[in-house]
Order: sequence, then C-alpha cells, then structure tokens
Amino acid sequence: MWAGPDGRGFLPERTRGSVSRALFFPSPGRPLNYAHTSLAIHPAFNTPRNLQDSRRTDGIRHTSATALPESLHPHLIRVMTLEAIRYRSGSLQILNQLLLPHETVFDEIRSVRDGYEAIKSMKVRGAPAIAIVGCLSLAVELRGGAGADDLVSFIRESLCHLTSARPTAVNMGRAARELMEFTENESMEKNTEQLRDSVIGWIEEMLERDVNDNKKIGNYGAQHILSGVPRDSVTILTHCNTGSLATAGYGTALGVVRSLHTLGRLKRLYCTETRPYNQGARLTAYEAVAEGFPATLITDSMAALAMREKGITAVVVGADRVVANGDTANKVGTYQLAIAAKHHGVPFYVAAPSTSCDLSLESGRDIVIEERPAVELTSINGVPVAAPGIDVWNPAFDVTPHQLITGGIITELGVFLPSELQAALTGRLTAL
Amino acid sequence: MWAGPDGRGFLPERTRGSVSRALFFPSPGRPLNYAHTSLAIHPAFNTPRNLQDSRRTDGIRHTSATALPESLHPHLIRVMTLEAIRYRSGSLQILNQLLLPHETVFDEIRSVRDGYEAIKSMKVRGAPAIAIVGCLSLAVELRGGAGADDLVSFIRESLCHLTSARPTAVNMGRAARELMEFTENESMEKNTEQLRDSVIGWIEEMLERDVNDNKKIGNYGAQHILSGVPRDSVTILTHCNTGSLATAGYGTALGVVRSLHTLGRLKRLYCTETRPYNQGARLTAYEAVAEGFPATLITDSMAALAMREKGITAVVVGADRVVANGDTANKVGTYQLAIAAKHHGVPFYVAAPSTSCDLSLESGRDIVIEERPAVELTSINGVPVAAPGIDVWNPAFDVTPHQLITGGIITELGVFLPSELQAALTGRLTAL
Repeated sequence: MWAGPDGRGFLPERTRGSVSRALFFPSPGRPLNYAHTSLAIHPAFNTPRNLQDSRRTDGIRHTSATALPESLHPHLIRVMTLEAIRYRSGSLQILNQLLLPHETVFDEIRSVRDGYEAIKSMKVRGAPAIAIVGCLSLAVELRGGAGADDLVSFIRESLCHLTSARPTAVNMGRAARELMEFTENESMEKNTEQLRDSVIGWIEEMLERDVNDNKKIGNYGAQHILSGVPRDSVTILTHCNTGSLATAGYGTALGVVRSLHTLGRLKRLYCTETRPYNQGARLTAYEAVAEGFPATLITDSMAALAMREKGITAVVVGADRVVANGDTANKVGTYQLAIAAKHHGVPFYVAAPSTSCDLSLESGRDIVIEERPAVELTSINGVPVAAPGIDVWNPAFDVTPHQLITGGIITELGVFLPSELQAALTGRLTAL
Repeated sequence: MWAGPDGRGFLPERTRGSVSRALFFPSPGRPLNYAHTSLAIHPAFNTPRNLQDSRRTDGIRHTSATALPESLHPHLIRVMTLEAIRYRSGSLQILNQLLLPHETVFDEIRSVRDGYEAIKSMKVRGAPAIAIVGCLSLAVELRGGAGADDLVSFIRESLCHLTSARPTAVNMGRAARELMEFTENESMEKNTEQLRDSVIGWIEEMLERDVNDNKKIGNYGAQHILSGVPRDSVTILTHCNTGSLATAGYGTALGVVRSLHTLGRLKRLYCTETRPYNQGARLTAYEAVAEGFPATLITDSMAALAMREKGITAVVVGADRVVANGDTANKVGTYQLAIAAKHHGVPFYVAAPSTSCDLSLESGRDIVIEERPAVELTSINGVPVAAPGIDVWNPAFDVTPHQLITGGIITELGVFLPSELQAALTGRLTAL
C-alpha cells in the first residue's frame, strides 16, 4: 500500500494486507476533486466495480507515484495487483504474456489442449502459475461435461498431458499427483457428477491457496532481510519474473519486494532483463511500473557491477524446483547471480512455496533442465538479432547449488537454510 | 586457415600467416571442378581481384565448413578476414556495424565530423578500431586540403573532438597524444604540405601496425593457453566483439581464437550475445560463421553454466583500457564473467595491444565509465522490448580488478601477469 507524502494515507482495516483489489482513498482531511477516467488503470489490473480509478482535475503536477500516469494523485493509497488469470466457473482467460508489455490480450482457455499450448508456448509461465492454469484448464473442460464415459481416466490423461508441457518446474507435476490421489480416493465414494464437482472444487482452491502462501512468503522474506540490516531501507536485486504474473497473485520473490515496499522499506529494486525471454524487462518492469516500486532495469551482465556499485542488500529469486538438499533450479542466469552475490558477500535468497519443493530428488544433478529452441535467443518479437548460421545453446534453467543460497529459502512456513529445508517441509508434508 | 578433412590442405609460404586476403586453394592431388560464383563470399569480405571465389560443381554434399554455404568445398583452404575499414588515400569507408548482420552497408567518411559521428553512434566500435577510424577520418580531410590556414591547430582541434566521442577506451586518446607530439616535432622542420604528408603517413601506418600487433597477440595468447592444457583442443569463452570488426584486422581476443583455430586446436568458441548492444550475437557470431570457427552463441547469463557444463578451457576478452595495476575496463559484463571464471578455476585472460594500456592511471577506480542512453537497453532495432516507464542503468563498461585476471594480459610483447604489466610496457614505451 502507498501513503501520501504527508504520511497520512491509510487503508481501512478490512482491506489492510489485501492486494487482490485496486482501492483508492483520498488522504484524510484533503478533499480532492476527481474526474472518473479509465486511462490510469491498465486493463490488466483488477479493479472492483464499485471503486473506480480517479483523476485529479486541479492541474497540479505530481511528483511521487512516478510509475503511474501523472493523472494519478500521490495522496491516493493504492493496493492492487495484476490480474493474469481470469477464472470463473466454466470460464478461463489468461493474460498472454508473450505480448506484454505492448499489448494486453486475454486468451480464452477452453480445454486441456488450450492449457497445454499456453504453457508450452509460454503465454503463461512461472512455476506456480503453470500449475494453476494447467489445472484450471482441466476444471473448465470438466465443467463443460468432458470425461463422462470414464472421468478418472480422463483426468489422469489430462494431467499427464499437462505435466509434459514443460519439464523443469515441479509444481504442475506435484499438483497432478496430488489431484490424481484425491480423485482416486473420491471416486470410491462418489458418482461421476459428485466426483466432477469435488475435483473442480479442489482445483479452484489452488488459486486462493497460492495467493495466501505468497503473502506469507513475502512477509517472512521481508522480515528476514530487514533483520539483517541496520539501514532504514534496502535495495533488492531480482531475476526473471516472480510476481503476480507468475503466480495466482502477489508473487514469490517479487512478493518479498512487495512486502518490503508495503512496509516503506524498499529503497530500490534492480531487475535483470532476463535473456533470452526478457521476463524481467517485459514483465517484472511492467509490474514494478504498475505497482509504483522504485525500480531500475539492468542487463543480466550488469548484476555484479550493481552489487559493487549500488549497495545491493540482498538478491531474491524464485524457483522452478527446490530439491531435498536445497539445490535450486530457476531461470537461467540464477547460478551466475548466486556466484556474484557470494563474491560480494550479498545474501542470496530463494523464495518459493513448498509446492515448488521436490524432496523426491536428492540433489540438483537429478533435475531435468529444459532446452528451448534457438530462435528464442536469435530473434526478438520475430526480428532476427543474431548472425544467421550460428549454433545456439539455450538451456531455460540452471541449478544453483545450495552452498550459494546464503540468505535462505523463503517458504510460506518460514525462512530456512538449505540444510534445514527437508526437516521443515517433512513436518508440514506429513501433516497435510 | 582451414585444412581439408584429409589434413592435406596447405598455404603457400608467401601467404602463411596472412589474413588480409581471401585465398582459395584446392587440396593437393585433388583436382576439382569449379564454377565461378559470387554467392559464397559475403560482400564484406575482402577478396583479391585475381583470385575469385569458386564453387564446386560435382554435386557432392559437404559436411565441414558448416558456416559457409554448402557450395563451398571443405577441401579448400581459406584465409580471409572481414574488411570493416576500406581506406585508400583520400577515401574512407566503414562497415556500418549497427546494421550487421542483416545489412552490409559501407558508410563514406569524408571528414572528422563524420568520423566523430560514426564513433559516437557506434557504427564503428572496439577500442583499436575507434582510434584508427578517428585518425583516418582526419587523414581524409587532410588529403582534401583542410587546415591550410593553420595545419597544427586544425589537427589539434580535430583530435580533441575525436577523443571526446567516447570516454572509456584509451586508444583514441593515446593516438591523439602521440600524433600531436609527432605533428609538433615535424612542424619545426617542414612546411605545411610536407607536414600534411608526414601526418597522413603516420596515420596510414596505424592500420598496418594494428594488424601486426594483433597477430602477435593471437599467437602469444594461443601458445599460453595451450601450454596450460594437456588436451588436444580447447574451448574458449569470449565476450563482446574483438575481431576484425573491432580492430584494423585479425582481432585481439578473437585473434587468439583465430590463432587457435589456425593451429587446429580450437574445439569450440562460446560467445556471449553481449547485451545491450548485442555485439556478440551480431558481430562475433557473424565473424565466427564467416570464418568457420565452431562456435555457439549463449546469453550473457549462461556463461557460468557453460563453465560448469561445457568444459571451458579459458575465458579471453578484449579491453578498452588496461591501467598500471592491471585493472581492466571492458564491455559491461566482463567483471561478472571474471568472477564466474574465478569460481570455476577457469583462467581469465585479457587480450589487448599496448596501445590499450594506460599507465598514467594507477588503478581501475580512476577510469571514467561511459553511461549510454536507456533506449539502447529498452529497444532493439527500434522495437521496444521493455515496459515503458521503467528506470534504466546502462553503463557501457565495467572494471575487472587485476586479481581476477588469473590467466594473464596478452599483448603484442607477450603474456604478462597484471603485476608484471607495468615493467613490461615501460621497457617498450621508453624504447619507442
């Protein structure tokens, strides 16, 4: 949330801590003249119907909230988050992230096949979002009556197909296993239509769970980082996109940044552009601008220099899979960042829900790393950027060994050293 | 040079070691049937008039020389280098590197103003090439009769202007100082037209000197790298572009790669794309494809992973300025590469002619680092690639501390540890 420069902004208690809606409040004691406009809010933002975006009409130039159009008054308190997944029973639309930040297009997902394609082509990406969109695509098809002949087989085949879209992130595979176990148990007691409703209900709960887990991750991470620094505000470096666009909402590593910003303790965020798919330049920068984080874009190759020159307090990244010993697969470039952080004595954190942890693998050596097509590196938006004929190596992820995760692994259960992770999660996992 | 797969390729003694011309020889004892074509040689290559590119007409599919059109027979020996600077007395054209690899356009440089603009806009880049093109633009204007009123003042003002185009590379500044000193000495004994001829002669010698120095750098570097590895062939990782396009010819770091390839000891070159200006993807990849180096393009963020997974023997980069203690300013990202190399125990080399060394500065802290416009990072070929409104930090260079230059500094005088550089160069510099 934002406070105005007079520090008098506030949120009513009922919305404090909530980021699922855009709310605008005038600073107390400062009546303002607003004109309704739809310009200031990007269509991808989720605005409640009874609270409209507003524009001040007194012609004063505003100096804060730099990331917003000048038309937005700084004395507004704003709590909102990007809406990347639009779901209501039987209907799913996803924000096509390939077209961001230039076009805001929601694609209709009508089937498991659509869900698979959206994941494979990276219209949706981010380990938690992949699992949620995959499962929701199944829910949509189930709501339409699919699988009437043999519901359990239909669900099994659908989940198997969805899991095969991208191999590195664990979340889809874990969700598939858990949902399949649930389905088989339920099928013993329920008829087809009852089972259909149960499975859809299970999937719909994933959305809410993910946002709640992310808020906990954000708060635990912010507390942990702030406990280690005497300074008033902190400078965070992050990689790739781990925000509302990568999750059901709030974000993991970017959720930690969001919490720091909410606490008024974020001095600046440095985000790497994250080649070759530019998730940092396109998506994290987009979220940062939209949410008003003080944020600076750098190339991936400038991270070490930023650590030396810009007083980076901590590096916080997300994860596609954290295995038992704490080794972490994440967007390619994470490993190099972790080495640079170690060199500069900057704490390196991984922020991930426990659903991204995979205790079935002992070490990072066991993680399958997806290699993506060369064209993703040699062209941008269809425009060639590399010399024709050159060979290309395009691994989408790398594995950061646990020794380099010096800050800790931030989960919804707390912040753990890599060596503590297995014990911490085992307690929870057996309790589930 | 290439040998055919039967190892019987050869170069006549008179051309051995020369890379300034494209020469094609059939493998001995293997008479081939050639048809003349202009397809196989890119127009940017410098082909001698009496030796034309040839195409085999026997219809056999060729499996080596992968970077060349299949029409080129692998049993050809090829020695050529890209021609980025076309100079003859009174006329200068430069290959516009902003348009590579998609368009090959030579821009006419008619004046010092044109030279300044070409350097500033990065149509020509690379520390040695900047100095050479800058000085040649002066030679062209001098040949046209400029400065007749006061030749010494004209030269001084021209050099001052050229030096101001880009601040980090030392070569232009050094050339300006040396040429000015030469000019002032000569002016005591010669009339205006004699002085004009002397200055033009001095400048024209720069071209030849730079190529010769680069060949020595290539050979010293290759020997040093090979002396440290028992293996038959080596894998090199480089950054940015330091080849024929960045120098008068042959290249510095890429000259080392060229020498290794000539010796048949280059297993593979990994070149980083080098954001934000993509000199690696556009220029190094272009040179590698054109010259037939086995080469793989990676993003800057994959370098550490390549060191872990691909058996990188050494990292070799160029330099924009090496100062007295060995600290080295080079394209941004070099510092991060050096940290990753140190972490993996991979020797890290800087290849630079002594003209890129600046003993007047004690340490890297004294080097001015150029910051370039944000748009170079937020758009590619005029197409926006980042979210509008994001702040950007775009330093063009960084400084790698001498402690991380573990392989050595490769100069035309030999390979030195950073701690030896000053003594090695002082001997030469006083001898000049």
